[in-house]
Amino acid sequence: MSFITLLTDWGESSYYVGVVKSVIKQINPSADIIDITHGITPFQVREAMHILFRAFPDFPRGTIFLVVVDAGVGTSRKPLALELDNTSFLVGPDNGLFTLLCEQYGTKHCVEIQNHQYTYKPIPSSTFHGRDIFAPASAYLSRGLSLHKLGNTIEHLQTLPITPPKIHENTITGEIAFYDHFGNLETNLPQSLLDTLNLAIDTPLTLTISGKQYSGLYTKTYEDVSPPLFTVHPDSSGCLEIALYQGNAQEKTGAHSGDKVEIQVTT
Amino acid sequence: MSFITLLTDWGESSYYVGVVKSVIKQINPSADIIDITHGITPFQVREAMHILFRAFPDFPRGTIFLVVVDAGVGTSRKPLALELDNTSFLVGPDNGLFTLLCEQYGTKHCVEIQNHQYTYKPIPSSTFHGRDIFAPASAYLSRGLSLHKLGNTIEHLQTLPITPPKIHENTITGEIAFYDHFGNLETNLPQSLLDTLNLAIDTPLTLTISGKQYSGLYTKTYEDVSPPLFTVHPDSSGCLEIALYQGNAQEKTGAHSGDKVEIQVTT
Amino acid sequence: MSFITLLTDWGESSYYVGVVKSVIKQINPSADIIDITHGITPFQVREAMHILFRAFPDFPRGTIFLVVVDAGVGTSRKPLALELDNTSFLVGPDNGLFTLLCEQYGTKHCVEIQNHQYTYKPIPSSTFHGRDIFAPASAYLSRGLSLHKLGNTIEHLQTLPITPPKIHENTITGEIAFYDHFGNLETNLPQSLLDTLNLAIDTPLTLTISGKQYSGLYTKTYEDVSPPLFTVHPDSSGCLEIALYQGNAQEKTGAHSGDKVEIQVTT
Repeated sequence: MSFITLLTDWGESSYYVGVVKSVIKQINPSADIIDITHGITPFQVREAMHILFRAFPDFPRGTIFLVVVDAGVGTSRKPLALELDNTSFLVGPDNGLFTLLCEQYGTKHCVEIQNHQYTYKPIPSSTFHGRDIFAPASAYLSRGLSLHKLGNTIEHLQTLPITPPKIHENTITGEIAFYDHFGNLETNLPQSLLDTLNLAIDTPLTLTISGKQYSGLYTKTYEDVSPPLFTVHPDSSGCLEIALYQGNAQEKTGAHSGDKVEIQVTT
Repeated sequence: MSFITLLTDWGESSYYVGVVKSVIKQINPSADIIDITHGITPFQVREAMHILFRAFPDFPRGTIFLVVVDAGVGTSRKPLALELDNTSFLVGPDNGLFTLLCEQYGTKHCVEIQNHQYTYKPIPSSTFHGRDIFAPASAYLSRGLSLHKLGNTIEHLQTLPITPPKIHENTITGEIAFYDHFGNLETNLPQSLLDTLNLAIDTPLTLTISGKQYSGLYTKTYEDVSPPLFTVHPDSSGCLEIALYQGNAQEKTGAHSGDKVEIQVTT
Repeated sequence: MSFITLLTDWGESSYYVGVVKSVIKQINPSADIIDITHGITPFQVREAMHILFRAFPDFPRGTIFLVVVDAGVGTSRKPLALELDNTSFLVGPDNGLFTLLCEQYGTKHCVEIQNHQYTYKPIPSSTFHGRDIFAPASAYLSRGLSLHKLGNTIEHLQTLPITPPKIHENTITGEIAFYDHFGNLETNLPQSLLDTLNLAIDTPLTLTISGKQYSGLYTKTYEDVSPPLFTVHPDSSGCLEIALYQGNAQEKTGAHSGDKVEIQVTT
């Protein structure tokens, strides 16, 4: 079993997705393709980086993650294929998409995809690298092709600057990772950071999100508090989530991926 | 062949869907997963109940229907797995989602999913039961695991109150089940009820939807009448549908799942 | 390996899609189903025709393209199954959807689907031909059923009128095919037509789109020019695309499928 996952900003309705699946299946008919999402906000590399980082641990080792967001097709941006230390593969443009995964898991080997023996057509188009370069590379990797066959080794990858999770006295700071369908704000703050404060359930919190202040409570789940109070609770990936029960925290705050977030125990 | 179907309110772009598929495939690599929809209006259990009920008959016996809408994660809401008398399985929270199917097909056996031997990780997260409890339960059932291995039997399930389809003289009453992408209003009124009135095609009808009156015609298909007249016709599941040809009946009426609907032969 | 692709206007969230997949898999469990899109603007046969035409070349010979847009269910519109000269199959309503493919690739054989031995139920519903007629026909074809088993030969198909790509002195004319998720306008103008003018990169162009004039530049990629200037460049299928870098050309122009487009070298 070898998964190839897809993560793009093409929109769920884009026929590009079907075309990419066709190209993959023509190279490896037994590939098991799983869509992570095609709903990344157009060009939002940072949002894609965070979502990929969250989804990653729930896929088995050896999975090939094909990611196409702001590929900079036709520019000097390099198409990458890399193997993490845990034997999973990442395939996509060199624009910082893989910053968090490479930091967390370590990079075993990274190449620039250059070998036209493994592209869709001998001369890739200048606008659709998803089909012409990234899909075939992913499909060949899923067939067991050795990474170094795809092109020359690259040592230095582009990275995105992150506001790292930090704690200072009774305040923790970090950034908004993304928001989900319900408008829940996902942060890059690990629950474990908050745990060091030994907070009781229902402890009042002061939230500073994208520069504005809100009141909240530390809770176990969504349903433990009513708007206008926000809840702060651990989400499914072990990070803190900021939500309004049956409300939309993103609309309320206007927060976007990368905005600074501060959670302070109210005193 | 054993299908596992997915029906949630996570949105088509949610990466949770991909994660759930990964978890299922890691337990049963040959599972055949079919998305019914992830576009249920957030928290609208009733809408999900009606759509599940419509989709159900077109899946083969033995299908496992995984449904996650308003799971009440972290509350006392119980995670269920049940077998219908027709040998299909339902997996999801105990919040009324399965009211119509249990009424129609009968419940052979229902359990509360409790056995951590069959969860994703020994201790499920308090926010993502779709991944941690429902997906693994569905996957193990698709491998033939006996229902009683998942947990203890439950006798009484939560149900939703329904406005049952009724006929009185020349008037039939029921409720809006949901509306589709085109704004067509799907009701819980079986065509067979209207058949007892022996209406000729093009019979004028008075519609009362969510408390407001509209004029319509009894037709065979969408295209037999022009707005502002509504058409009332049998849909693909044998129930009556209320539509505006090339228009949007939901926007026109503001109707939602559960709203009362009355169709009266105009006299 | 035999693909069945799906292309409809039902919306990505429609449960009809899941039902159609269930019907196909019940007839041919090993069918490999790929969604092209379910996001066609409701009833927009022309948009669907253009998108199908673009996606088509990236699927292997023998693929079965199931297309349901404005099926005119219950009217006299005929359900079709046809084989192109290149051995791919098209299945859908006789409303012009296949105009471009039939022109380009030639029709080997076309039948009206009439044989109820190959429908979902002996008497198809009058509203859901996707499930009842088109899905089973596609599934049986994928199992190798001979086309003539499905019904009688049809000689004359409905077609849509197209504004054909033309060049006159320094002006080329054609039509808007569709627009993508980013609002990029896709035209039916082949890059090869523009090539005959031997334009240098950054040549200024005057664009007339849906009757209004805009300024643009001939470029290689999206990123070579900033709004308000439009870029005109070859897209992944070899046709000209009109775009605003990190902007939305469709919103700016209000253009829709079928609108006339004119690209003139500015003098």
